[in-house]
Amino acid sequence: MRIGLLGYGVVGAGVDHLAQRLEGVSVEKVLCLNVGDVPGGRGVADISAIIDDPEIDTVVEAMGGLHPAWEFASGALKAGKHYITANKALVSAFLPELVELAKENGVALRCTAAVGGGIPWLVNIERCRRVDSIRRIHGIFNGTTNFILDAMHRDGAEFERVLAQAQKLGYAEADPSADIDGDDVRRKLVISTAAAFGKLIRESDVPMFGIRTVTAQDVLNFKALGKVCKLIARAESGEKIKASVEPVLIPAGAPESAVPENFNLVTYESENAGVQSFFGQGAGRYPTAYNVVQDCLDVCGGKNDFYTKQYVAAEVDNRDVLRCYYVRTSASDAWLQSVAATQGDGYIVTRAVSQADFHAHVRELQSRDHRLFFAAVE
Amino acid sequence: MRIGLLGYGVVGAGVDHLAQRLEGVSVEKVLCLNVGDVPGGRGVADISAIIDDPEIDTVVEAMGGLHPAWEFASGALKAGKHYITANKALVSAFLPELVELAKENGVALRCTAAVGGGIPWLVNIERCRRVDSIRRIHGIFNGTTNFILDAMHRDGAEFERVLAQAQKLGYAEADPSADIDGDDVRRKLVISTAAAFGKLIRESDVPMFGIRTVTAQDVLNFKALGKVCKLIARAESGEKIKASVEPVLIPAGAPESAVPENFNLVTYESENAGVQSFFGQGAGRYPTAYNVVQDCLDVCGGKNDFYTKQYVAAEVDNRDVLRCYYVRTSASDAWLQSVAATQGDGYIVTRAVSQADFHAHVRELQSRDHRLFFAAVE
Repeated sequence: MRIGLLGYGVVGAGVDHLAQRLEGVSVEKVLCLNVGDVPGGRGVADISAIIDDPEIDTVVEAMGGLHPAWEFASGALKAGKHYITANKALVSAFLPELVELAKENGVALRCTAAVGGGIPWLVNIERCRRVDSIRRIHGIFNGTTNFILDAMHRDGAEFERVLAQAQKLGYAEADPSADIDGDDVRRKLVISTAAAFGKLIRESDVPMFGIRTVTAQDVLNFKALGKVCKLIARAESGEKIKASVEPVLIPAGAPESAVPENFNLVTYESENAGVQSFFGQGAGRYPTAYNVVQDCLDVCGGKNDFYTKQYVAAEVDNRDVLRCYYVRTSASDAWLQSVAATQGDGYIVTRAVSQADFHAHVRELQSRDHRLFFAAVE
Repeated sequence: MRIGLLGYGVVGAGVDHLAQRLEGVSVEKVLCLNVGDVPGGRGVADISAIIDDPEIDTVVEAMGGLHPAWEFASGALKAGKHYITANKALVSAFLPELVELAKENGVALRCTAAVGGGIPWLVNIERCRRVDSIRRIHGIFNGTTNFILDAMHRDGAEFERVLAQAQKLGYAEADPSADIDGDDVRRKLVISTAAAFGKLIRESDVPMFGIRTVTAQDVLNFKALGKVCKLIARAESGEKIKASVEPVLIPAGAPESAVPENFNLVTYESENAGVQSFFGQGAGRYPTAYNVVQDCLDVCGGKNDFYTKQYVAAEVDNRDVLRCYYVRTSASDAWLQSVAATQGDGYIVTRAVSQADFHAHVRELQSRDHRLFFAAVE
């Protein structure tokens, strides 16, 4: 395998380092802004030096972002090169197009590192589905928000202070929106749903709520309820897909409640194997690069489809999902009062309500109370 | 793949059921006591009907026990048939012989279901080692003892009562010794050590202590210390292998502490991927059968070595392992008093001591106090 690597940042340099150990795999050229950064004179400044090079059979992308990643990906696939990426934004947004292009050109498309960093999540879904069917997936897919929530639970600190600490430690970006508002998790859920169910759902169809407004007082309330708050993505298969990204209050003592720091814990439930969970580092140079080079070996070994052979488009419908919700808001709302089961000090817990209904009401309430916070209660 | 299946009990019948879904895989003959139990007239009463059948290319064993499993395994391998088994006792006891026979005859030897039931443990170790090196493995490898300890922590019940309940639910055998005394876990550790480090250690070299003598009062003591008791196997690679099976007090809130009921949680630490854990059903008809048929597919796909290419024999040496221990005993012992750091009501907690020294002393103490219980403190 002769690789053209796109990007030489944290992940790209990690991939270059780990690939050196693999027999039969070599990074021939590296596209980056400062070509001098790349040892061995392999740096190139123009994508055509890679796409037009017939010696390069595989493009590995470690840049991130939608553009020019999409243009590079489609160019590489059309040129008959395998495409391996850790870019979840790209794959989530262009999944049908990428799968189609890979199929048309008879090349592989892999993105194991895009969901769960170093965790062998997509590959174990792929293995499971050889003999079993997966009905549900759920879990903690984002290390930044887990780090923040874990620290808030341990230290009683306010969100802003913990976020600043996470940024200092490199666990959160300077602009943390994609993590704390749930975009990152939603992208991973869209990709996981495709791999686990063979169903293509649209990112924008999945309701998404983050943790930006959670307070130290909320955390005290969760503790009084015997719960731990985590940002959870979940999807359930069917003719229509039930899918959401929202904060959830987990019973203290349940596996998800014990996930520390910036770790991830992701789970599928299959018919025969039952509940299977995977815990590990969802980000970072070497965990991410690890799964990228594993993809390289799988492609060398002949794996040539995107985790499953068949995909069909599917809608998201959460009307039949019934959940209880913790809601802390200063806005008054007749519907919310009508479904309140418990009245706490400054918050309510609803009886079981339709998730779709709840999300619609809470969006309206958020327009009146920007500090509102809610979480499903398990 | 044309399979000769040995055994038609819980796992064997499960394998037969799941194998029907696989293209290109068929169970041709089944060795069992009551040949009439097997649908399709496939039952045979004599192993030679399978071993001497040139049409059968793979033997799947789901009987358990050392004999005649060893004779059947060596016969099948010598006859040039792939051998797939869920029998941890067999593989742990005869690992060097089985690996050698498989190599000599150019056939595959797989036992994914032998460690972790339905959990994809050995196969993910195998995948990890393609690009990474594993330094440590540890975890909860036994569902029976986890069920008992979990119930004791939740209900405050005594060991005997919970064991009887586990037996009633089918989570413990009529003779529970292999589970509660640690033999089952030790076998899994020996197999895992081979796969993870390429090192063959002997079962009898690994110190093993179980949970037979833990009491409701011990559990109250653990809670007062903020800990949860689990039966933990661990091994660390090196010129000599550090390896043990013993009860461990885990901080409440750590991932292992949150493993409920009869689930397993097993972990490796590798250089680049970091800590990776796998949670799921470590036993049961369909989880176990699931991994057996996955092995069938891997062998069909050309996987032909026992999880790693090279093995060397290695010794176990725990002299340099330093640990603190909770000890509850009515016997008096000068050494134990000399290393006591905390004196509780009826128990002590030692300062950090050599694990090898501690195990030697505690064995002598157990001969004087059969009710002694101890656990390492983390």
